[in-house]
Amino acid sequence: MKIAYVIPGPMHLTELGEAEISRRKQKLQGWAFPGTEVDALSVDRGPASIESAYEEYLTVEPVAQKLRAAEDEGYDASILGCFGDPGLDGLREISAKPVIGPAGASMSLAATLGHRFGIVTVTESIVHALRRLAWETGVLDALASVRFIDTPVLELNRSRDEAIARMVAEGKKSVEDGADTLVLGCMSMGFLDVAEEMSEGLGIPVINPAKAGLKHAESLVSMGLSQSRKAYFTTPKIESGKHLEGLLVAP
Amino acid sequence: MKIAYVIPGPMHLTELGEAEISRRKQKLQGWAFPGTEVDALSVDRGPASIESAYEEYLTVEPVAQKLRAAEDEGYDASILGCFGDPGLDGLREISAKPVIGPAGASMSLAATLGHRFGIVTVTESIVHALRRLAWETGVLDALASVRFIDTPVLELNRSRDEAIARMVAEGKKSVEDGADTLVLGCMSMGFLDVAEEMSEGLGIPVINPAKAGLKHAESLVSMGLSQSRKAYFTTPKIESGKHLEGLLVAP
Amino acid sequence: MKIAYVIPGPMHLTELGEAEISRRKQKLQGWAFPGTEVDALSVDRGPASIESAYEEYLTVEPVAQKLRAAEDEGYDASILGCFGDPGLDGLREISAKPVIGPAGASMSLAATLGHRFGIVTVTESIVHALRRLAWETGVLDALASVRFIDTPVLELNRSRDEAIARMVAEGKKSVEDGADTLVLGCMSMGFLDVAEEMSEGLGIPVINPAKAGLKHAESLVSMGLSQSRKAYFTTPKIESGKHLEGLLVAP
Amino acid sequence: MKIAYVIPGPMHLTELGEAEISRRKQKLQGWAFPGTEVDALSVDRGPASIESAYEEYLTVEPVAQKLRAAEDEGYDASILGCFGDPGLDGLREISAKPVIGPAGASMSLAATLGHRFGIVTVTESIVHALRRLAWETGVLDALASVRFIDTPVLELNRSRDEAIARMVAEGKKSVEDGADTLVLGCMSMGFLDVAEEMSEGLGIPVINPAKAGLKHAESLVSMGLSQSRKAYFTTPKIESGKHLEGLLVAP
Amino acid sequence: MKIAYVIPGPMHLTELGEAEISRRKQKLQGWAFPGTEVDALSVDRGPASIESAYEEYLTVEPVAQKLRAAEDEGYDASILGCFGDPGLDGLREISAKPVIGPAGASMSLAATLGHRFGIVTVTESIVHALRRLAWETGVLDALASVRFIDTPVLELNRSRDEAIARMVAEGKKSVEDGADTLVLGCMSMGFLDVAEEMSEGLGIPVINPAKAGLKHAESLVSMGLSQSRKAYFTTPKIESGKHLEGLLVAP
Amino acid sequence: MKIAYVIPGPMHLTELGEAEISRRKQKLQGWAFPGTEVDALSVDRGPASIESAYEEYLTVEPVAQKLRAAEDEGYDASILGCFGDPGLDGLREISAKPVIGPAGASMSLAATLGHRFGIVTVTESIVHALRRLAWETGVLDALASVRFIDTPVLELNRSRDEAIARMVAEGKKSVEDGADTLVLGCMSMGFLDVAEEMSEGLGIPVINPAKAGLKHAESLVSMGLSQSRKAYFTTPKIESGKHLEGLLVAP
Repeated sequence: MKIAYVIPGPMHLTELGEAEISRRKQKLQGWAFPGTEVDALSVDRGPASIESAYEEYLTVEPVAQKLRAAEDEGYDASILGCFGDPGLDGLREISAKPVIGPAGASMSLAATLGHRFGIVTVTESIVHALRRLAWETGVLDALASVRFIDTPVLELNRSRDEAIARMVAEGKKSVEDGADTLVLGCMSMGFLDVAEEMSEGLGIPVINPAKAGLKHAESLVSMGLSQSRKAYFTTPKIESGKHLEGLLVAP
Repeated sequence: MKIAYVIPGPMHLTELGEAEISRRKQKLQGWAFPGTEVDALSVDRGPASIESAYEEYLTVEPVAQKLRAAEDEGYDASILGCFGDPGLDGLREISAKPVIGPAGASMSLAATLGHRFGIVTVTESIVHALRRLAWETGVLDALASVRFIDTPVLELNRSRDEAIARMVAEGKKSVEDGADTLVLGCMSMGFLDVAEEMSEGLGIPVINPAKAGLKHAESLVSMGLSQSRKAYFTTPKIESGKHLEGLLVAP
Repeated sequence: MKIAYVIPGPMHLTELGEAEISRRKQKLQGWAFPGTEVDALSVDRGPASIESAYEEYLTVEPVAQKLRAAEDEGYDASILGCFGDPGLDGLREISAKPVIGPAGASMSLAATLGHRFGIVTVTESIVHALRRLAWETGVLDALASVRFIDTPVLELNRSRDEAIARMVAEGKKSVEDGADTLVLGCMSMGFLDVAEEMSEGLGIPVINPAKAGLKHAESLVSMGLSQSRKAYFTTPKIESGKHLEGLLVAP
Repeated sequence: MKIAYVIPGPMHLTELGEAEISRRKQKLQGWAFPGTEVDALSVDRGPASIESAYEEYLTVEPVAQKLRAAEDEGYDASILGCFGDPGLDGLREISAKPVIGPAGASMSLAATLGHRFGIVTVTESIVHALRRLAWETGVLDALASVRFIDTPVLELNRSRDEAIARMVAEGKKSVEDGADTLVLGCMSMGFLDVAEEMSEGLGIPVINPAKAGLKHAESLVSMGLSQSRKAYFTTPKIESGKHLEGLLVAP
Repeated sequence: MKIAYVIPGPMHLTELGEAEISRRKQKLQGWAFPGTEVDALSVDRGPASIESAYEEYLTVEPVAQKLRAAEDEGYDASILGCFGDPGLDGLREISAKPVIGPAGASMSLAATLGHRFGIVTVTESIVHALRRLAWETGVLDALASVRFIDTPVLELNRSRDEAIARMVAEGKKSVEDGADTLVLGCMSMGFLDVAEEMSEGLGIPVINPAKAGLKHAESLVSMGLSQSRKAYFTTPKIESGKHLEGLLVAP
Repeated sequence: MKIAYVIPGPMHLTELGEAEISRRKQKLQGWAFPGTEVDALSVDRGPASIESAYEEYLTVEPVAQKLRAAEDEGYDASILGCFGDPGLDGLREISAKPVIGPAGASMSLAATLGHRFGIVTVTESIVHALRRLAWETGVLDALASVRFIDTPVLELNRSRDEAIARMVAEGKKSVEDGADTLVLGCMSMGFLDVAEEMSEGLGIPVINPAKAGLKHAESLVSMGLSQSRKAYFTTPKIESGKHLEGLLVAP
C-alpha cells in the first residue's frame, strides 16, 4: 500500500526545508509494516507552523488540493501532518480515500492502553482545541489533562534537549493529574522520536502521534475501511463541483 | 454603537445579489435597539452557500479580512452571517472587537428559556457540526435534538411557503424529542422572519438566530465585554504579523 | 419597555434601606439601552439576606405577589434580584411575562465568551446551589469552579475594599482552576460595580450579574420571547386559581 | 425508633381528611421493621396537592415548622410526604435530625437493582423537576425516562382502577425506553400499594416510594447517620436564629 | 429474615481464621434490625485477600456455589463480603434471591446524604475498579475522588492504629477534593468499626460498608424486592444448567 | 511478530471442534500484515459459549494460564477471542505482553471513522455489558446504541444466512438510532466474514472485531507499546506469586 503523509504547511520553503521533509519520510518508512510505501509531501503555501486556530484554518484549502492530487497518484490513504487534525471533517468530505488525523488516531489508541490519558503539547493557545478533538473523537471522558511546554513549534527543533526535558517535566505532571498513558501532542514532538525514552522515564506508555497515525492508516487500508459517508457527507454541491474550485464564487 | 453583520460568502455575486443584502440590513436595523446602527457586509469571494464543513473552511480567510476592515472602520462588534459560526475561534483570535456566532448566541439563549431546546436546520450534512457547536458553547446537555428539512439553503428563498411548512413539521418532531424551545438553525431561515408565527403554531418559543445574534452583539457592546483572551489567544505570531498575510508562507 | 428589578427581601426595612434600593435603580437605569425604563422594587417581607437554601425558599411567596403586581402595572419583564435565582421555576409558572434569573443570564452569557467560566460568590453554603443552577441552565460542562470569599452578604457593603480584594484573590484561583471568564456570584457584588476593574486586573472578562440580567431582560422583550410553557407549565390549578391565594388551603 | 412522615399539605382539611392520614400511618406502620414507631403528620396550611414547582415552594415554611416540632417531640427522623422532595436542601439545613426525601431514597435504591430505571408520575408539569432530582441525587445517568399518566393527584384516589391501568401502560413504555426497574413517582401512587402487583405484570422490580422512604429512614437511624453538614450548612444566621421566624424581616 | 454474609475467600484457612469470621458475624448481628438473623460464611477456596482485578475474578466461581447453597438453606439475601462487589453481575444472574454488593449499597447511600462523596480504600491498584463501580451503580457524577492508604488488606488488621490514622489523613484529603460524605472502601476497614469516630473527627458522615450492605439487604427483603431480571438475565443456558457445573465443558 | 488468538472456551471439545479453530487461524493469517504469524489457541476448560456475565467469569482463570504459556512460547501479544473482552483488566495485570480486547479495539476504531457508532450483538443478556465496555474504553459518548439479533452464539454458525439477514436488519435500526459506523459485537459474527458485504448494503463502515483485534495487536507490537502498568498494576502479591496458583488458598 502507499501512504501519503501531508504536511499542512510549505515546510520546503522554511528553514527546515526539504531536508526535514526527507528525514520525516525516512522515519515513517522505517516505522512502516513490510509492504507499505510512505511518502511525505508538503503543500504549496500556508503557515510556517500552526499554533492557533486561525493558522489551522489557513491550511485547509491547500491541503485539500494536495489530498486530491495524492488520490489521483494512487495513494491509498493520507495522514494529516499536524496534531490539530486541521480541517479533518471537511477534508474527509472531499476525499474518496481515508484521511487520518493523528490526534484522533493517538487518543483512541491511548484510550485502549489504560483508563485515562494525558496530552503534552507545545503552547497554551491550542489546549482547548485538543480538548475539543478529544470530544470529537469520543474519548473526552478518558482525557486526564492537557499540559503544554510553552515552547513554539519552531523552537522544538532548535533546542532539542531543552524541549525533551520540558516534555518529561510536563509528563510527570500528567501522571499527577491521573494519566496512566501519555500522548505527545505535536507532530514535531513525534519526529524527535523520544517516546520510548520518555516511557522508560515516566513508567507509562508514551504515544508518538506520527507512528500512531501511520499504524492507523495502515490498519484502515488493510481492513478496507474508510471514514463514514453518514458522518462526512459528500453533498450534491461537492459531488457536482468535483473540481474544488467549483465551490467558490469570486469576482 | 455600530454593528457589522458579515455574510461569509459573496452574496452580491449570487442570484440573491445586493437586494437581499440590503433587505437583511433593513431587517436587522428594524430589530435593533434605539441607538444601534447595523450594516450588512458580504465578503469578496467564497462559497455561494454553506452546507458542508469544507465550505465553512473556505470562508474563514475572506471573513478575517472583512472583520479587520470593519474594525478599522469603527464597528464595535461583528456578527458572523452563518449559523455554523464558521471559524469563530480563529476569527476571535485575530479580532480586537467582539465577534458573535449566531449559533452560540441562539443556543445559549434557548438554554435560558426552558430545559431542553431543539434545532431545525437545512440539511443532514451539518447536523453533527451543530451538535459540536452545542458542545463548544457548553450547552450540549440541553440539546434535545437537531432536525433538518432536507432543503438546500438556496432553495429556501425560492420556495418560501414549502420551506416554512417543513420547518413547522420538523419543529413538531423536535417537541416530541423533548424540546420545549426551538432554534432555527440557518440564517436564511432567520431572515424568513417567521419565528413568531411558528411559535404560535408550535406552542413553544422559537428563536430567530439573526435576531439573537444582534441582541447578543448589542448586549456585549453595552456591557463593555468581549471574547476572553485566555480562550482565544492572540499568539505572538498573530500579534507580530498584524497584517494577516504575514502568517502565510508562499513561493 | 419597562423592566422591574425585584429584590426578594424587604431591603427597605433593613439598614441598607430605601437609599440602597434607589442607588440600585439608578445603576440599572444607567446601564439600560435607550428607551428602557427600569425600576427596583423590594418585597414586603422575607429574609434580610440570602445565604442558605432555606432563606431562598422564604422569598418565593412574597416575590410571586410582587411579580403579579408588576405585571398588572405594565412591566414587560422582571429580574430576580438574587443570584440564586430563588424560585425561578415556580415564579415562571405563575407569571405571564418573562422572569429573568441573573445567574442563568450570567452563566449562559459567560459560556459564549470563552470555554470555561468560574464563579466567585460569598459563602460556602451556596456553592452547591450554584452548581445546580449551572446544571439547570444547561452549562455545567462549562463551569470550571465555584469559589467563595467567605464573607456574608451584609458585610460586602460595609467593607467594600476588603471585599473587592478577596474577590480578586478568588478570581485568580478561578483562573488557575481553568476559568477564562468570571461571573460575580452575588447581586451585591454586582452593585459594587467593579467588574471592569477586576477584568483589567485578571486579564479575563468579568460579568456583572446585575448588568447581565438587565441585558437579558431587554433582549427578551425586544425579541418578543418569554419562558417556554412546555418547560414552566401553567397547570389547571394555577390557571383556575388566578389569585395565588386560591392554591392554599388553611384553617 | 420513632419516624415522622410529614405530609406537606393540610390533608386533614381536604376531602381526604383525617381518614386518609390515618390509613397512611397504618400502611407505614405495617411496612416498618420491628421496633419502629411511625406517625403521619400533616401541616397546618399549604396546597391541597402538589403538581407545580410553585406549589412545592408553598410547602417549605409550614413543613419546616412541623419538622422542628417533630424533633422536639423526639422523632429520630422525618420523611417528606411528597415525591418531589420539596425544599429538601433547605429543610435539611434547619433540621438536627435526618430528613429523607422519598424521591432520593427511591432513585438511589432503583440504581442498585438494575442498570437503568424509569419513573412513572402523575402530570407532565413535574417531569423536569424529577429529572433535576435525579441529577441532585447523583443518579441521572441511570434514569431511562420519566413518564406520566396525565392524571392529577387528587383524581388518583377517586378512580383507583383507571389510575392503576394507566400506571401499568406507562410502565410498559418505560421498559421500551430501556428501564429495567421502575419507580412510582408520586406518594399517592405509593399508598395505592400496588407495586408488587405491577412488578408481576411488568416483569421488573417496582419501587413504592413510601416504603423506600421508610426503609431509608430506618436504615439511617439504625446506622447513626444523617445528612452532611458540609452539604447542608447550618449557617451562622440559622444557628443564631434558632427560632426560624428570626430569619424573617417584616413590617 | 435470614441474611448470609459471604466472604469471597477462604478466611478460615488464613491467619485470621474462624475467630475473625465469628467476630464479623457478631458485629453484623449486633447491627441488625430486630428479627434479622445474620450469618458469616467463607468459601472453600480462593485468594487470601483481594487487591487486584485478577484476584476478584478468582472468587466468582466459589462464591457462586456458596450463594446457591445459601439459597437452598433458606437465606433470604446474600451480601458479598468484599467492597469490590466482585462478580456481582454474574452472581445476580445465577441467584434467585437478592445479592447485595456493599460498594453499590454504600455509594448509593452516600449519594443521598450530600452532594459528593469520597472513597478511602487500601491500595492504588483498585482505584479505577472503584470508579467503574460508581459508574455501574449510576453515581459516578457524585464521586469526588478515590483515595488510598497504601496498605495491603492483610496489614489492616495487624496495625490497626496506624491504619486508622492513615484513613483519617486520606479522609481529610477527600474533603479537600470536595467530598461532603465519606465511604470506607474495604470490608476490613468496615469491621474496624471506626466510622462514627472518624465522622466526628472529619465533620462529615462516614459510611461503614459492612453496615450499609446489611441495611440494604434488610431493606430489600423487607420490601420484597430483588435485582431486576431485565438487568441480570437468567439466560436459557443458565436456566437449563441449574447445576452451575453444567455450564462448563472440560476434557 | 507472533500473535496468539486465545479462544476463551474449549472449542476443540465442542461440535465446532479443531476444524473451526483451524479455520479461524487461517482467516486471521490471511488478514495479517506481511511478517506476522498468527495462531489460534483454545483453552482447556470453560463454557461452550459466552452469553452471560457468569460465563465470562468462568473463562478468566483458564485464559490466564494460556496467556502465561503463550508468553513463555514467545508470542508478542495475545487477543482475547470473545467480544466481551472477558477479564481483560485482570489478564492485563498478570501478563507481561500486550493483551488485546477486541471490543475495546473495535470501538476505539469505530470512534475514529465517524461521530457515533452502533453495535449489533447476539443476545439481550449482554447489551449492558457492552455499554460498560464502551465506558471502560472511554468512548461511551460515541455509542449510538447496542442492538441484538436474539440468536445464541452457537446458532450463528448453524443458520448462517438467517443470522446475516438479522444482522443487516438490526444494522439498519442502528442507523436510525444515529449510528454512522457499525461494530459487529461477537467474534463468531466476525468470522462469518461479512463486514464488507454488510457495509455495502448499509452504506456505512462495518467493523469486523476479529480483524480489528488483529490490527490493534500488530500495531501495538510494531510501536513497542503495551498496556499501562499505572492502569493494570502488577501488585506485590502477583509479582511474588509468579505462578498464578500461588494466589489461591485452598484446603
